[in-house]
Amino acid sequence: MPLSLAVLGAGRIGKVHADAIAATPGARLVAVADAFEASANALAEAHGARVSTIDEILAASDVDAVAICTPTDTHADLIERFARAGKPIFCEKPIDLSLERVRQCLSVVDETATPLMIGFNRRFDPHFAALKRAIDEGRVGSVEQVVLTSRDPGLPHLDYLPRSGGLFRDMTIHDFDMARFLLGEEIESVVATASVMVDPKVGELGDVDTATILMRTPSGRQAVIINSRRATYGYDQRIEVHGSGGMVSAENQHEASVTIATGDGYTRPPLQNFFMTRYAAAYRAEIGAFLKALSEGIAMSPSGDDGLAALALAEAATRSVAEKRPIDPRSMGKGA
Amino acid sequence: MPLSLAVLGAGRIGKVHADAIAATPGARLVAVADAFEASANALAEAHGARVSTIDEILAASDVDAVAICTPTDTHADLIERFARAGKPIFCEKPIDLSLERVRQCLSVVDETATPLMIGFNRRFDPHFAALKRAIDEGRVGSVEQVVLTSRDPGLPHLDYLPRSGGLFRDMTIHDFDMARFLLGEEIESVVATASVMVDPKVGELGDVDTATILMRTPSGRQAVIINSRRATYGYDQRIEVHGSGGMVSAENQHEASVTIATGDGYTRPPLQNFFMTRYAAAYRAEIGAFLKALSEGIAMSPSGDDGLAALALAEAATRSVAEKRPIDPRSMGKGA
Amino acid sequence: MPLSLAVLGAGRIGKVHADAIAATPGARLVAVADAFEASANALAEAHGARVSTIDEILAASDVDAVAICTPTDTHADLIERFARAGKPIFCEKPIDLSLERVRQCLSVVDETATPLMIGFNRRFDPHFAALKRAIDEGRVGSVEQVVLTSRDPGLPHLDYLPRSGGLFRDMTIHDFDMARFLLGEEIESVVATASVMVDPKVGELGDVDTATILMRTPSGRQAVIINSRRATYGYDQRIEVHGSGGMVSAENQHEASVTIATGDGYTRPPLQNFFMTRYAAAYRAEIGAFLKALSEGIAMSPSGDDGLAALALAEAATRSVAEKRPIDPRSMGKGA
Amino acid sequence: MPLSLAVLGAGRIGKVHADAIAATPGARLVAVADAFEASANALAEAHGARVSTIDEILAASDVDAVAICTPTDTHADLIERFARAGKPIFCEKPIDLSLERVRQCLSVVDETATPLMIGFNRRFDPHFAALKRAIDEGRVGSVEQVVLTSRDPGLPHLDYLPRSGGLFRDMTIHDFDMARFLLGEEIESVVATASVMVDPKVGELGDVDTATILMRTPSGRQAVIINSRRATYGYDQRIEVHGSGGMVSAENQHEASVTIATGDGYTRPPLQNFFMTRYAAAYRAEIGAFLKALSEGIAMSPSGDDGLAALALAEAATRSVAEKRPIDPRSMGKGA
Repeated sequence: MPLSLAVLGAGRIGKVHADAIAATPGARLVAVADAFEASANALAEAHGARVSTIDEILAASDVDAVAICTPTDTHADLIERFARAGKPIFCEKPIDLSLERVRQCLSVVDETATPLMIGFNRRFDPHFAALKRAIDEGRVGSVEQVVLTSRDPGLPHLDYLPRSGGLFRDMTIHDFDMARFLLGEEIESVVATASVMVDPKVGELGDVDTATILMRTPSGRQAVIINSRRATYGYDQRIEVHGSGGMVSAENQHEASVTIATGDGYTRPPLQNFFMTRYAAAYRAEIGAFLKALSEGIAMSPSGDDGLAALALAEAATRSVAEKRPIDPRSMGKGA
Repeated sequence: MPLSLAVLGAGRIGKVHADAIAATPGARLVAVADAFEASANALAEAHGARVSTIDEILAASDVDAVAICTPTDTHADLIERFARAGKPIFCEKPIDLSLERVRQCLSVVDETATPLMIGFNRRFDPHFAALKRAIDEGRVGSVEQVVLTSRDPGLPHLDYLPRSGGLFRDMTIHDFDMARFLLGEEIESVVATASVMVDPKVGELGDVDTATILMRTPSGRQAVIINSRRATYGYDQRIEVHGSGGMVSAENQHEASVTIATGDGYTRPPLQNFFMTRYAAAYRAEIGAFLKALSEGIAMSPSGDDGLAALALAEAATRSVAEKRPIDPRSMGKGA
Repeated sequence: MPLSLAVLGAGRIGKVHADAIAATPGARLVAVADAFEASANALAEAHGARVSTIDEILAASDVDAVAICTPTDTHADLIERFARAGKPIFCEKPIDLSLERVRQCLSVVDETATPLMIGFNRRFDPHFAALKRAIDEGRVGSVEQVVLTSRDPGLPHLDYLPRSGGLFRDMTIHDFDMARFLLGEEIESVVATASVMVDPKVGELGDVDTATILMRTPSGRQAVIINSRRATYGYDQRIEVHGSGGMVSAENQHEASVTIATGDGYTRPPLQNFFMTRYAAAYRAEIGAFLKALSEGIAMSPSGDDGLAALALAEAATRSVAEKRPIDPRSMGKGA
Repeated sequence: MPLSLAVLGAGRIGKVHADAIAATPGARLVAVADAFEASANALAEAHGARVSTIDEILAASDVDAVAICTPTDTHADLIERFARAGKPIFCEKPIDLSLERVRQCLSVVDETATPLMIGFNRRFDPHFAALKRAIDEGRVGSVEQVVLTSRDPGLPHLDYLPRSGGLFRDMTIHDFDMARFLLGEEIESVVATASVMVDPKVGELGDVDTATILMRTPSGRQAVIINSRRATYGYDQRIEVHGSGGMVSAENQHEASVTIATGDGYTRPPLQNFFMTRYAAAYRAEIGAFLKALSEGIAMSPSGDDGLAALALAEAATRSVAEKRPIDPRSMGKGA
C-alpha cells in the first residue's frame, strides 16, 4: 500500500516537496491545499492530485501524512491541528519564530505522540551526509572543531526581512542545526558578532547581513559559523570538521566541472547559485527519509526538539550580539 | 498538445529513456514494447502506459515518435520500418555494427525524410556541454589538440563481448563521436595501438581491452583517446581541449565532494562507478533535446550521419591495429 | 658595498636566517654569536664568518645590522643594547612575553630611531603574499571577513610550554599578526574559547591546545582563527578572505603534487609537516625585505608596533578565556 | 674530502648547475670555463672559483669531475676528451643530435669506463620522483598506459630552431626519456603526428610546433606524449600513469596556491612560466644525485645509454612523421 500525502502550501518549497513525493516509489501525492487557488490547481494538476481545503485534508481518510510548506506564521497552528487529527507531519523549518510558541506546539505533538519531522534539508545533502558518515565511522576520531561556511548569493527581498526573524533565525538556523548534528554534544555557549556590510537598508530594518558565531560544548568542542548574505561567486556551503584523528571537509558545488586555462589563470565556473539547485538532491533524500521513517514506524529525525534547539541557538546568538557576551542557549526563553 | 512516445525495449537503457520522457513536461509515454512481457508490463505500469507490439506501435495514430532501445542487431530494421511509417526516431547507438548496413538504413531514413537522432549521450553531459560551449564561445581560440580519457570501471560480461563488435565499436565509439564533435573538422587519419591487459579471456575472444588511438584532421588538428576496460577508481571520463588561446578541461565526478585528511594523506572518494549514474543528467538532457527538436521541427543532432561517421572511425581503428598503420576512415567500407 | 650582518643565536632559526643572508646578493654574514661555542663555530664556518661575542658585535665597525635569533627572554635586552649602539635590528618574534617590557623596549627603539623589523615570517610567504596582493589590488573589494586556519602537526616539547607564554602568545601570535595585516583596521574586540583536547598534560601545565578566536573591528569587519596543536595530516596553514566583491584564499602545501587513485579513492600526500619546510621561501623573502629596507632606508615592516599589537591581541585572548567575555585589546597592559 | 668540480659553459644552465654545486655540502666549485671571458669571470667570482681553459681543467689534479653545459655541438667532443682524461662527467642533454656520433662517443666512455650522467632533469623533479616512487612501491600495480603532457609556454627564438634538431630532438626528448623511465620496458613502436599551428615560420624552417606521439612496448604497454610549443597558461608539465591497480598523476605547479572567487568564477594563477623556475628543485636534486653516485662509486643514472635511447625515439618520431607509419626505434641509425 503506497503512502498517500497531502502538501499544504503550493509555493516554491511546496512544489519541491510535491515533486519529490511524486517521484518516490511507494508514495503518492493525493491532495494539495493553498490559499491561492491557481497555485493549488497547477500543482495538483501536475501530479494528478486533488485540490482540497485544510479542513478537508484534516478529515480525509485517504491522507496518511502531510507536508507543511505554508508561511512560517501558520506552522505551529497547523502542526497542532494535524497532530490532534492523528496525521504524521513533515514541516518546513522553523516551527515558529517564538521559542515559547514552539514549546507549546511541541507539547501537543508529544501528547498526541504524532510523528513530526522538521525540514532541515542540509542533513540530507549527499556531500554533508558523506561527511557525517565519515565522522560516525570514526575516520577522523573524536570531533574537536567544526567550521561551517554558509553564505547566500544575495539578500532576500527586503520586504521579507521584517518577518524573517532576523539573520540568525532565518538563515543561520540551518547552520545551528548542522553544528548540533556534527558536534554530537549540546552547545553550552554562543557568542556572536554581526554587522551590516551588504546593504545599509538591512540595518535600517533592524537586521544584520554578516555574522560570525562561535560556540562551545561542555567538553570543550568548538564550532564556528561564517555567515553572509552576499557571495558574488555563488551559494557558498562548506563544512570542515577536525577530529583527534584527522579532518573531513565537504566542498562546494560548481555550476559545472570544467576549467578554462588562459594567460589569466585557471578558472572554474561560479558555484551553483540557488539553494534549490544546490540542495535538489537533499530535498529528495529528505522526503525519502520522512517516508521511510513513516513506513517503518521509526523515530523522526530531525525531530521537533531539533527544531527547538536550533531556534534556541538563534535566540542566544541574537542576545549575544545585543549584550556583547557569550550566552547559554539552554537558558533561552526560560526567563533567564 | 504533448508529444506521445513509445519506447521499444524495456531493458536498462529503455527504462532510463522512459523515465526521462515521463519526467519531461510536454511529453508522455503512451506505449512500451518488449519481447519479454514482464519487462514491458513493469515499465508500462510505472508510467501509466500500455504494452504494445511493434506492429501496433507502427500503426498507432497516437504515437508521435519512438525511442529504440532494443538490442543492437534490431536497430537498423526498426529504424527502416518506423521511417517508412513516418514516425520520428530516437535510436540508441550504434545503428548497426556493419557500415554497409548502416548506409542502407540511412538511405531509407533519407528517402523518407524521417527525423532521426542517435543516442550519443555524452554530448549532453552538462560538464562536456559546458566544455563545448567554452570552445564555441572562442574562450580557448582555435582547437588544436583534444585528449579524451575514457576508462570503464571493469569488463562487461564476457559473453557479451563476441556480439559487442569489439572495443572500438562498442566503447570507443562514444569517444570517436566526442572527438568529431570537438575537433570541428573531419578526421583523415586514425592510428591505434591495442593490447589485452585486463583479462587474457578478452584476447581469446578476439578482442582487446586497452587501447590508445591517435587521430588527425586535414588542417593538422590532433586528437588522442586513452581507453581501458579497467579503472579501479571508478568510471574515468575526462576531456581536455587545447586551443590557440588556452585549454578547457572537463573533470571527473566523484561519489561525493568530500575529503578526509589523515596521516595517510588527503583522500577523496572514488569516481561514480556506473555509467548510468555518471550520465544520469546527460540522458535526461538527451531526451529533452530530441523532444525539443521534434516539437520545433529543427534538425536532429547527433544525426544518423554522425552515427555512421563514428562507426567508420571504429572500423579504421580496428584495421589500424590489424595492419599496424594509419588508416583514413573516409575510405572505410568503400572497398578500400 | 654589500651589507654585513651578524647573527645572534646559532640555533635552528638562527641557521635559517644565516643561510638566507649568505644566499642574498648584496649581503654577507660576517659574525655569529652563541652561548654554545660549538653551535657558533659550526654556523660561522659554514659561511666563512667569524665567531664573536655580543660585546664584540656591538662594537664592530664592520657589522651593519644584526639578526636576533636568541631565546625570547633575551630579545628585549638585546634590542635595547643594539638600538643604543645604533645598529639596525631584525628580531625574531616575540619581542617579549610582557606587554610592559615590550613598551619599554620600543621606547628605546623610538628614542634612538633604530630601524627594527619583527620576524612575522608569514607575511612573506609567497602564497599569503599573493593573497594580500589580490586584496590590495581590489580584486575582492572591501574586506569583510577573514578566516585563518592554523594548526600545528603536533605539540612542542612539553618542557617548552611553561616558558612559551601559552598558546596565544606562542602560536596564535602569528595569526593575530596576519589578522591585523589582512583586516586593514585595528581590532576592537577579541573573544576566545580554548580547550585541552590533545594532551591532558598541557592542561596540567596551565596551557590549552585547541582554540577558536573571534575578533571584530570598529567598522564591523570580522576575523576568526582556528588553532590546534594537532593536525595528523601535516602543518595546516590556510587563509580565506571575504570581501564585498569576492573571496581570495591561500591553500595548503602538500609534500608533493601527486595523486594516487585506487578503489580506496583519490589520495594526495599529507601536508608539508614542518614549519621550516613550509615557510622556507617566506624566511628567505623576509630577510630579503629587511635587507632591502635597510639599503633603501625605508620604514621597516612588520615594525615593533606590529609586534606590540599582536602581543596585545594575545593578552586579550588570554583574558577572554579567563573571564568568558570579549576583551578590547587596546586596553591591554594599561591597568584596564 | 669534498668533491671539487669544474663547470664548462657559464651560460644559463651552467649557472644553474654551478649554483647547485656550490650549495651542496661535500662539493665545491673550483673552476669555470667559457668562451666568453665575462661570463666565466662572473660565475667564477660568485662562487670563489677560478677561471680556466678546457685544457687546464683537463690537466687539473684538483678537479674531480666536470659538468658540461656548453652548446650541444661541443658535447660529444668534450665527453670524449674528459673520458680520456679519466674525469667523471655530468653532461647536459643531448650528447649530440646525430645517433652515429652519440654511439662513437659512448664507445669512448665505455672503453675508458668513465662515469657519465646525462642531464634529464625531470627524473629528479620532486613531483615526478614521487610519482615514480608510487609506481616502484607497487601502489598502482603493473604499468599499462602512460600519458605525458608537455607544453612550452612559447616558441624559442626562431634563430635557435635550425640548430635545435627539431621538436622531437629538442623538446620531446625529455618526454621520451620520461616515457622510458616510467614504462619500465623498451619501446618497440613509435608513431607520431605533427603540425605547424603556433607560427607558420616554424614550418618554413622545416620544423613543427604541435605533436602527438604514440608508443608501445613488446608486452603491450602504451604511452602517449602531447606536445606543443605554446601554452598561454604557463609551462604545462604533467604525467599520468595507469596501472593494473590504479592511477598515479603528477600535477602542474601554479605561480601561487591562491584562488580568487568572484562572479566570473574561481580563478587560480597561471602555471610557473619558465622551465628554470618549474624545475629549480629538480636541477638541485640532479646535481645531488650526480655527486652522490660519484662519491659512492655507484652507477650513473640516467646514463649515456639513456641519452642514446631517448635520441633514437626522437629519430623514430621524426621518421614516422615523414613516412606516416609506425617506426621501431631500435632500428634507428642502423641503416634500417
